[in-house]
Parts: sequence; C-alpha cells; structure tokens
Amino acid sequence: MDSEDDSPLGYDAFRRTCPSHTVLEMLASKWVYLTVCALRRGRLRNGELARKMEGITPKMLTQTLRVLERDGLVRREVFPVIPPRVEYELTELGQNLAGLLSQIRSWAEEHAPEIKEARGRASADHDEMAAS
Amino acid sequence: MDSEDDSPLGYDAFRRTCPSHTVLEMLASKWVYLTVCALRRGRLRNGELARKMEGITPKMLTQTLRVLERDGLVRREVFPVIPPRVEYELTELGQNLAGLLSQIRSWAEEHAPEIKEARGRASADHDEMAAS
Repeated sequence: MDSEDDSPLGYDAFRRTCPSHTVLEMLASKWVYLTVCALRRGRLRNGELARKMEGITPKMLTQTLRVLERDGLVRREVFPVIPPRVEYELTELGQNLAGLLSQIRSWAEEHAPEIKEARGRASADHDEMAAS
Repeated sequence: MDSEDDSPLGYDAFRRTCPSHTVLEMLASKWVYLTVCALRRGRLRNGELARKMEGITPKMLTQTLRVLERDGLVRREVFPVIPPRVEYELTELGQNLAGLLSQIRSWAEEHAPEIKEARGRASADHDEMAAS
C-alpha cells in the first residue's frame, strides 16, 4: 500500500469493510448522480424529478430518494394539503457532494465524443479480429 | 429544463439517448472508481490491482479493465516474456478522470462518519416505527 494514498482520518475506500467503501457503493449509481445534480438548483417534487430524468422508473426514483434520505443527503418535506405535496431538497452535505458530482457530469458531457470514438475503434478492432 | 444546466456542447446527461448518459453509466461502478484511483500513481499488473482492491473477483477485475480499455481510459501492455507480463496504465484521458475520481474517493473517506451516523439514525427511526 502506498502511504501517500492513506486518508488522514484512517479511512481507506480500498478496504471492503471500511465505511467509506460503502459510501462509494452508494455513489456508484447514475441515478444518484443525476438526482443530486437535478436538486442542485433547489427543491423539486417527485413528478418534477421524474420528468427531468429521462428513463427513470417510479420504483427506481423512490429507491434512489430513499437511499439519499437515509444517508443524510436529501431532506423530504411533506405539506399537509390535499392531495399531500412532497418535496425533496439537498441537505448541506448533499450540496457539498453536488458540487463534485456536477463536475463528473460535466466531465461526461465534455468527453463523450472522445469516448464514443474510442468505443467505435474498440468495436472495429473486435470485428476485424472476428473476421480474421 | 433549465437552460443554465445545458452543456455548451449540446450534450445532456439527463437525456437517456445522449452519449454522455452512457459515460455516466460506465462511471457508476465502485470498481471503476477504485481501479482508476489505483492506477493514478503509475502502471500496475493484474495481480497488483487485485491485491489493492479488497473483495474484487478476478472476473470483475477483467471486466472493469476491459471497459476502461474500450473507453480509452486505460492502456494494456503485454510484454513478450515467459510467462507473459501484462501491465495496465492510465491514458491521458484516464489521468484526467483520475483527478476527479480521487476527489470523490476523498469525499467518501472524509464524510463516511457523518453518513454512518445518518444511517444509524434512519435505522433507529425505522425500528421505532415498526415497534409502535
């Protein structure tokens, strides 16, 4: 192990039993990325989130919001009106994470053309090998 | 849609058909995070990577390295010795991503105690509701 890699707090995401490893696991979800990015500008209702994230199923959205709420990244507020209105917003910790995840999202958007090209080359190489 | 959210290149990770969405999907893996972080300091062999990432199966490691190679983030070099030696290193694009993913890893290590606490509270609330 490289000592420079060590966290000053003694946490090490490379160790499966380290709590930070389970935090990485939680973050390893495109819906977590997108939900946190979507809430960055302010609170949204369930339906607004669903419309923003193309392709998310109601079940996946509920599951993602529950995980984010459980981990203290998102706060859920229920307004006692009829029908009840439920809104979600980032906590301070969630806002802190949102800055980083937005950079990942921007990186994905900025480098998508390069990666698409690399994928095209890889698949052409594969076809060539299969044909020879 | 919020126009400030738009990427200057017209890419939008919220759209399922956008190439950047599939880049986010590729990034949404704890093994991708950890492999890229592990290679940040220089090239490593398969066995060295496997030892660094506690809990990764040989199959998952191979799969992760193939995806990273396909997407142009990792370069694989085979040395014609007996037995053959295979080494992996980050490409320039991979190095660029590694800076960001290391920040995510540091964030996970730094905030693991807070998140652990939030999880504890959530599970206590859940037990209380179940008991009442």
